[in-house]
Amino acid sequence: MTATEARRRFATARVARLATVDGDGRPHLVPIVFVLARETIYSVTDTKPKRTTELRRLQNVRANPDASVLVDHYDDANWSALWWVRADGAARILDLDEPEAQHAVQMLSERYPQQRAAGPVLAIDVQRWSAWSAGGTN
Amino acid sequence: MTATEARRRFATARVARLATVDGDGRPHLVPIVFVLARETIYSVTDTKPKRTTELRRLQNVRANPDASVLVDHYDDANWSALWWVRADGAARILDLDEPEAQHAVQMLSERYPQQRAAGPVLAIDVQRWSAWSAGGTN
Repeated sequence: MTATEARRRFATARVARLATVDGDGRPHLVPIVFVLARETIYSVTDTKPKRTTELRRLQNVRANPDASVLVDHYDDANWSALWWVRADGAARILDLDEPEAQHAVQMLSERYPQQRAAGPVLAIDVQRWSAWSAGGTN
Repeated sequence: MTATEARRRFATARVARLATVDGDGRPHLVPIVFVLARETIYSVTDTKPKRTTELRRLQNVRANPDASVLVDHYDDANWSALWWVRADGAARILDLDEPEAQHAVQMLSERYPQQRAAGPVLAIDVQRWSAWSAGGTN
């Protein structure tokens, strides 16, 4: 898979999985909806915080900005069609009133009309793309 | 979602995503096929190592056994049907000639006739289940 094709598959996926690491070195994993703009992945939470505790993903990136985001395709009937694309990078937390956050929320709401932004925006600046496909080099 | 229902949804999913953490505290993320037996998640690699370097997930759990495995359901047309189930636990690496590994490979080959076990078995002993569904408490 070429770098261009890997990026295209990632950018057009509707859901991805985000891994962060807490202060004790434990991984944390959640599905996210997202938008890729240039080399930054944006996501935002649409759940209003019900408790005083911040979302774990946000706590984690404050302690350790390293983040990994995975998009993959699984097909039980055709393992030769399997592929994944992974973006590793550094996360930043943006308050909703920042211009970059407002732009991200606008892009997200165009992509996902269902979503209502409620929390801060998580911005992940991609430092490395990795890709694999069962079909090999195509 | 009840604990029983969460476990059922996890156990019957065909693909999951595995997060581990490297020696520098960076997350690593890959899709896996797996089988859940009692409170242990088994997976095995079907790619023969092409280089002397071990797979990152195996390197990682040797340095830090903490692992997280996520199963989720995404439906663009119906966000009220979204759910995820996550298993956090501690990973062990089993050589293929160990009885526990042989049993795991047998279960995996029954579940995924396509797969050919080639590498060691990754066993993750679940310490904590978490679940969420957009539908709320059902």
